[in-house]
Amino acid sequence: MSAYFTEDGSVEAVNGRMSADANPRLAEIMASLVKHLHAFAKETKLTPEEWEVGIDFLTKTGQICSGERQEFILLSDTLGFSMLVDAINNRRPTGATENTVFGPFHVPNAPVREMGTNISLDGKGEPCLFEGRVLDLDGNPIEGARVDVWSDNADGYYDVQQPHAQPKWNNRGIFVTGSDGRYSFVGIKPVSYPIPDDGPVGQMLGYLGRHPYRPAHMHYLVTAPGFQKVVTHTFVGDDPYLQSDTVFGVKDTLIAPFERGTDNQTAWRSPFDFVLVPVHRAESISCNEDQRA
Amino acid sequence: MSAYFTEDGSVEAVNGRMSADANPRLAEIMASLVKHLHAFAKETKLTPEEWEVGIDFLTKTGQICSGERQEFILLSDTLGFSMLVDAINNRRPTGATENTVFGPFHVPNAPVREMGTNISLDGKGEPCLFEGRVLDLDGNPIEGARVDVWSDNADGYYDVQQPHAQPKWNNRGIFVTGSDGRYSFVGIKPVSYPIPDDGPVGQMLGYLGRHPYRPAHMHYLVTAPGFQKVVTHTFVGDDPYLQSDTVFGVKDTLIAPFERGTDNQTAWRSPFDFVLVPVHRAESISCNEDQRA
Repeated sequence: MSAYFTEDGSVEAVNGRMSADANPRLAEIMASLVKHLHAFAKETKLTPEEWEVGIDFLTKTGQICSGERQEFILLSDTLGFSMLVDAINNRRPTGATENTVFGPFHVPNAPVREMGTNISLDGKGEPCLFEGRVLDLDGNPIEGARVDVWSDNADGYYDVQQPHAQPKWNNRGIFVTGSDGRYSFVGIKPVSYPIPDDGPVGQMLGYLGRHPYRPAHMHYLVTAPGFQKVVTHTFVGDDPYLQSDTVFGVKDTLIAPFERGTDNQTAWRSPFDFVLVPVHRAESISCNEDQRA
Repeated sequence: MSAYFTEDGSVEAVNGRMSADANPRLAEIMASLVKHLHAFAKETKLTPEEWEVGIDFLTKTGQICSGERQEFILLSDTLGFSMLVDAINNRRPTGATENTVFGPFHVPNAPVREMGTNISLDGKGEPCLFEGRVLDLDGNPIEGARVDVWSDNADGYYDVQQPHAQPKWNNRGIFVTGSDGRYSFVGIKPVSYPIPDDGPVGQMLGYLGRHPYRPAHMHYLVTAPGFQKVVTHTFVGDDPYLQSDTVFGVKDTLIAPFERGTDNQTAWRSPFDFVLVPVHRAESISCNEDQRA
C-alpha cells in the first residue's frame, strides 16, 4: 500500500495517524466515525458540489444555535440518532417502562407539589387527571420516587418558550410518592406541536417531504433511590401524528389511555404505571436482552 | 416489526419516513448517511454523555465559521473526507496527473503573466524556478492551457491571510501555454505551515495526538479546453511533514524534484509536467479504473 492517502486505503490512512497516547475511548469513537463516514462517501459517490451543500448545511446549523436554540440536537432528533443513542443505553427487560427522548424543554428544580395538584396555571386546554403508580419489576410500590412532569400548554408551547405569555412553572411539577407508590396530578390533555422548523433542519424536513410535528405527549422523569432513571413520555393514543413523530419518540408501550373523566373537574383521565429497574441489575439484564435480540 | 422506532429497525424507521416525492439523489444520500451514522452509534455504543460532547463540538465548529474561516472544511480535510471525495470524483488513468485538495486559499482571476515572471513580490524566501510542460496522455503538448498557481510566502502565510502585510497577488499568477505546452515562473521554494489550529478542529487534533502541519507545496489549477480540470499541488520532496500531512493531500506522484539551480537568479529549480485527460474519455476511463481496482 502507498505510504500516502489512497481511495481504497482512506480509512487506514486517517486512523493510522492517531497517536497511541490518545484517550482509548476517544480513539475508538473517532476510528469508527471515520470508517462509517468514508463508507458513506464511497457508497454515494458523493460529489464535491454535493459536499459543498453539506458543509453549508452544517455551518448554518451551527450558526443558528444560541442559548435558546440547539439546532444540532434537532438534527440528531429528526435523523433518529437521539432515539438510537437512548435505546442503546437503556435496554430494559420486558415489563419495565421504556425510555424515550429527553427533549430540550425540561427545567430542573420544578416545584414539588401535593398529589392531585393542578399544574395548568394558565387555565387553557382540556383538564386531564394523570394518575398511576411507580412500581418495581415485581409489582411492589416504590416509596419516595420523584415523578417530574412537564408538557406544552394548549397552544403547543412550553412555558420556557413563552416566558412573558405563560406563568412560571406552567404545566410543570414534581410529585413524590408515598408508601403506596401512587402519583396523581391534573394537567391538560397535551396537544401536538411542530419542532422549530424555520431553520436548516426544518428546510431539510421540507426537502424530504416530512412534517415537523410531534404527537401530543406528557413528559416524565422518574427517579427513585436504587433504581434506574426513566426519561420518557406518555402519548395520547388518538393523535394523528403518532405514526409519524418527527423525532421518532413513540413506542407501543408508551401510548397511554386517555379516557373521559367521571367528574366535572376533569374532562379526561389518563392512567399509567411506571415500572423501574434496579440499578444493580442493569448490566446483567442488558446482556440478557442482547442475547435474546 | 413495530410500527414505531426500535433499536434494530432504526434505519428503516427513519428512512421509511422520506416522501416518495423527495429528490431521488437527496433521498439516496440521506438514506446512506442515516444508515452509516446509525451503524456508528451501534458499533461504539455511544453514550448520551459522549453524544453531548459531539453536539457541543459540532456547534462550536459552526459558530467559529466566518467569511474568513471555514472550520467544517478543516474538519472534513483533517478526517480525510475532502481527499476521499476528491479521489472518488477524479479517478484517472495511470500517467495522468492526480488531483489533491483544492484548499481555501485560491483566488480567482489572478493576473495572467509572461512566462518566467517572478511571482514572489515580497522578496522573502528562496527563489525557485518552476517549469515544465502541459501534455495530453500521448505526450503531445497542449496549447492554451491555463496554469493558475499559488503558494504561501516564506513566513507560511498566503497573501489573503495577510492583506496588509503582503503585496496583492503575492505568489500568485496565471501562465498560458504556447504551442510547445511549456510553462515557467519564478516563485519561492514553499514552506510547511500549520492549518488554523486555535479552534475546535485544532483541539481535536491535539486530543488525537496529531500535529496541524501541511508539508510545503505549490498549488496548481490547470485547465485547457477539451480536458479535465486538474486541481493539485506539487510537494517539496524533503519536507519533514510529507508522511503526515494533516489533510492527507500527499500522493507519490505529486512529489516534485527540488534541485539546486544552475544560475544565480534562482537558488532552486523544480521541474514538473502536467498530463491532462480529455473530457470525453472521463466516463469510460473511470469505469475501467473501477474494474481494475
